[in-house]
Amino acid sequence: MKIIKTTNSNFKTEFENILSRAKTDIKEVSAIVTGIIDEIIENGNEALKSHIAKFDKWEVKSDSELMISQDEMKKAYEKLDENLKKALHTAYDRIKTYHEKQLPKSWLDFEKNGTILGQKVTPVDRAGLYIPGGKAAYPSSLLMNAIPALVAGVEEIVVCTPTPNNEVNELLLAACHICKVSKAFKVGGASAIAAMAYGTQTIPKVDVITGPGNIFVATAKKLVFGEVNIDMIAGPSEIGVLSDSSANPKYLAIDLLSQAEHDEMASSIMITIDEEIANKTSQEVENYLKTLSREKIARKSIEDRGAIIVASNMQEAIDLMNEIAPEHLEVMTANPFEILPKVKHAGAIFLGENTPEPIGDYIAGPNHTLPTGSTAKFYSPLNVENFMKKSSIINFSKAAINELGEACAILADTEGLTAHAKSVRVRLES
Amino acid sequence: MKIIKTTNSNFKTEFENILSRAKTDIKEVSAIVTGIIDEIIENGNEALKSHIAKFDKWEVKSDSELMISQDEMKKAYEKLDENLKKALHTAYDRIKTYHEKQLPKSWLDFEKNGTILGQKVTPVDRAGLYIPGGKAAYPSSLLMNAIPALVAGVEEIVVCTPTPNNEVNELLLAACHICKVSKAFKVGGASAIAAMAYGTQTIPKVDVITGPGNIFVATAKKLVFGEVNIDMIAGPSEIGVLSDSSANPKYLAIDLLSQAEHDEMASSIMITIDEEIANKTSQEVENYLKTLSREKIARKSIEDRGAIIVASNMQEAIDLMNEIAPEHLEVMTANPFEILPKVKHAGAIFLGENTPEPIGDYIAGPNHTLPTGSTAKFYSPLNVENFMKKSSIINFSKAAINELGEACAILADTEGLTAHAKSVRVRLES
Repeated sequence: MKIIKTTNSNFKTEFENILSRAKTDIKEVSAIVTGIIDEIIENGNEALKSHIAKFDKWEVKSDSELMISQDEMKKAYEKLDENLKKALHTAYDRIKTYHEKQLPKSWLDFEKNGTILGQKVTPVDRAGLYIPGGKAAYPSSLLMNAIPALVAGVEEIVVCTPTPNNEVNELLLAACHICKVSKAFKVGGASAIAAMAYGTQTIPKVDVITGPGNIFVATAKKLVFGEVNIDMIAGPSEIGVLSDSSANPKYLAIDLLSQAEHDEMASSIMITIDEEIANKTSQEVENYLKTLSREKIARKSIEDRGAIIVASNMQEAIDLMNEIAPEHLEVMTANPFEILPKVKHAGAIFLGENTPEPIGDYIAGPNHTLPTGSTAKFYSPLNVENFMKKSSIINFSKAAINELGEACAILADTEGLTAHAKSVRVRLES
Repeated sequence: MKIIKTTNSNFKTEFENILSRAKTDIKEVSAIVTGIIDEIIENGNEALKSHIAKFDKWEVKSDSELMISQDEMKKAYEKLDENLKKALHTAYDRIKTYHEKQLPKSWLDFEKNGTILGQKVTPVDRAGLYIPGGKAAYPSSLLMNAIPALVAGVEEIVVCTPTPNNEVNELLLAACHICKVSKAFKVGGASAIAAMAYGTQTIPKVDVITGPGNIFVATAKKLVFGEVNIDMIAGPSEIGVLSDSSANPKYLAIDLLSQAEHDEMASSIMITIDEEIANKTSQEVENYLKTLSREKIARKSIEDRGAIIVASNMQEAIDLMNEIAPEHLEVMTANPFEILPKVKHAGAIFLGENTPEPIGDYIAGPNHTLPTGSTAKFYSPLNVENFMKKSSIINFSKAAINELGEACAILADTEGLTAHAKSVRVRLES
C-alpha cells in the first residue's frame, strides 16, 4: 500500500488526488437518465416494463407482476436460518433504539404579551426506498433506510429493487417483512427513481426518496430533487483512519480492507503519526488481501485509491482528515475522545480499537447511509429527519401586533410592498 | 376573485389546476444555466466579469471591484433613518431568538456494557447566501438567511447579490453590517451560484448555498446540489387561508393581496366554509386592489391564480388545504388551535386574526424562506440545521464487541463481505 509523507515534495499533488477522489462527470449519464425519466413520466408502467425487459431480462406480463406480495415477504422471513433471524432482529432493535433518540419534538414558546411561536414536526406521508438488487442486494440497506422512516412515523413505506431474471433476493424480502414495508416493487435503476418521484399506474408517488445506488440511480435522484426530497447523492464508499503508535496494525489493515472490498472505486486512507505503524500496516494489508473472497476488487481499490499518509504530528493529521471529510472515520489512538472535539467533518466516527467500521454497517445502531466524497462537510448521515419536515407556528396576540405591527409595516414600506403594510395596519386601526 | 364550490361538477379540474400551480419546465433554462456554470468553472473571475457586463451592464475593471467592502456596509448602516434602524434591530433580535431555540445539541448515550453511541452536531465552515438585487433587493431576505447561519456558528458567511448598473442597494448593505457578513460580492444570477459552488479566484467555495431567486437561480441551485448543499428549490410565493364565518373579510382580502402583490405568478387561495364570507372577501379584494402601488401585478395574480373555494365543512377544507400544502397558511377561524393538529403540510402556519402573514415576513421571528408549490410536503422552512450537519459517534467497549460481534459477522457473511466479517472476528479472537 502506498505510503506518503507530508514532508515529501510531491505531497500536495498526492493529497489533491485524494481530495478529488469522488469527482465524476455525470454529463453523459445525465442525458441518458433524463431520457429514462421522461419515458416514465409519459408512459408509466409500459415504460417500466420495457426497461425491465432490457436491463433485468425478464418479461412483465401484467402490472400486478411488478409488485411483491406481503405473503412472499412473510414466507421469506419464515424460511430464515435461526441465527441469521436473530442477528437481523438484534440489528433491527439496536437501529430502532438509536434512531428513536434522534426524533425531534414539536415545540411552543410563549411571550409575556401572549404571543405563541413554535415549530410543528410532522412525518412525510410516503417514503420511497431504493435498494440495489442482484448480488449487491444488502438486507442491511433495507433496515438502515426503512427504520428511520418507521421511527419518523411515515404511514406508507414503498421499496423499489431490481430483480435481474425475475429473481428476488430472499433476505431482502425477509428484511421487508421485519420492517413492515407497505409495498415493494420489482423495479430498479433510474426507472425506479422516476417511478417513485412521479408515480405510475402501479407505483405511488412518494415525498422522499432515499437509498444507495450506482451512478444512474444517483443521477436520477439529483434530477428528481425538487419534485421530491432526497437524502443525499452518494458515491463510492470510503474510510479514513487516524492512528498513533498505540494502534494494532492487524486491526488497521483489515479495517482498511473492509472498505476496499466494497468497490474498486472505494478509497481507504490512513493518516498516522508513526512511520513504523505505516510500514507494518502496509505489510498486514498484503497478508490479508490474499485471504479475501473479494481479493481482486479489494486489491485494485487499495492500489489505485488507497494510501497511508505519515504526518508530522496529530494536529496535522487531524487537519488533513478534516479536509478529506471521510464517510467513515476510525480514530485508533490511545485516547480517541481527546481527538473527537477536533473532528469537524466525517459521516460516522468510530472511536477506539474495539470499534471497527463494520460494526457500524450492521449492528451498532447509527445509520450506515453516510455522506461520501467530502460531502460530510455539509450532509448528515441518513436520519429520522430525512423523513420529517417542520412547519413554523405563529400566533400573535392583540397586544403583540399593537407592539410590533408598526415596525413590521415600516419594513414592508421600505420594500415597496403596500399590501403587506396595509394588512398589518388595518389590524392596528381597528 | 373566482369563487368555486367543492360541489361544482368541474371542481376536480379546477382543483387540479391549483395543485399544479408550480409546474414549470426547466429544460430550456437548464441548458442555458449548465453553460453558465461551465464557464465559471473554466474561466472563474473572467467569466463573472463578462456575465456582469452582459446582464448587469457595468464593466468590472479589476477583481477587487467584485467585492463590497466592510466599510461600505458600515456607512450604509450609519446613514439609516432612525425608525428603520430600530425596526431592523427589532427584526434581527426576534429572528435570532427564535432560531436559537432551533439549535440542536450534540448528544451521547451510554449502555450498561460501556458502549457509547451519539451524534455530534457541527456547523458548516462556510455558507453562501444569494440575495436578489435591483428592485427586489429585500433586506429582510438577508436577515432571514444570515441569522440562522450566524446562530448555527458558521465562521464565514458569504453574500452574492447582483448590482445592475453597479448600483448597490444601501438597505441591503446595512443589513449585511447588522448580520456581520464576512464577504459580499456584486455578482448575481446563475453565475453567482456557480461561483459559490465551485469557487473563483475571488469568491470562496462554500459548503451550503441558500436564498431566493428567479428560475435561473433556482435551476443553478439544483444543478450544483451535491457539489454543495442547498436549502430548497423555491418557486413563486403563495398563501392559503382557511376561514369560517367568524373571520373578517377585510383582513382576509388584504392578506390574500399581500401574496398577490409579490408576483404575477403568486397564488392566493382561500378555502372557507361560509359562502357569505367568500362573496364579501371577493368584494373587499376588488376594493383594496385599487389602492395598491403594485395593483397591476396583484390584479393579474388574483385573476390568473387566485381562488376562493367554498367547502361543505371544515374537515373537507383542511383535507384540501393539506393537498395544496401552501407556503403560508393562515387559519382565520374562531378557534385556530383546534385546527392546528390537523394541519399536516404547510411552510408556516399563522393562527388567528391578529397574525397576518406579513408579520412572519419581517418581525415575528420564524424564517420567511419557506417551501412553495406543495413542497411543504417534504421541505422545512429555512432553519439553523440547513447550516449544520451531524456525525454519528460509535465507541464500542470490549464487552460490547464480544456480545454483538458474532451477530455482526453473520450479517457480513450473508452479504459476502469477508473483510467486514474478519475485521470483527479478529477482535474476538484476541
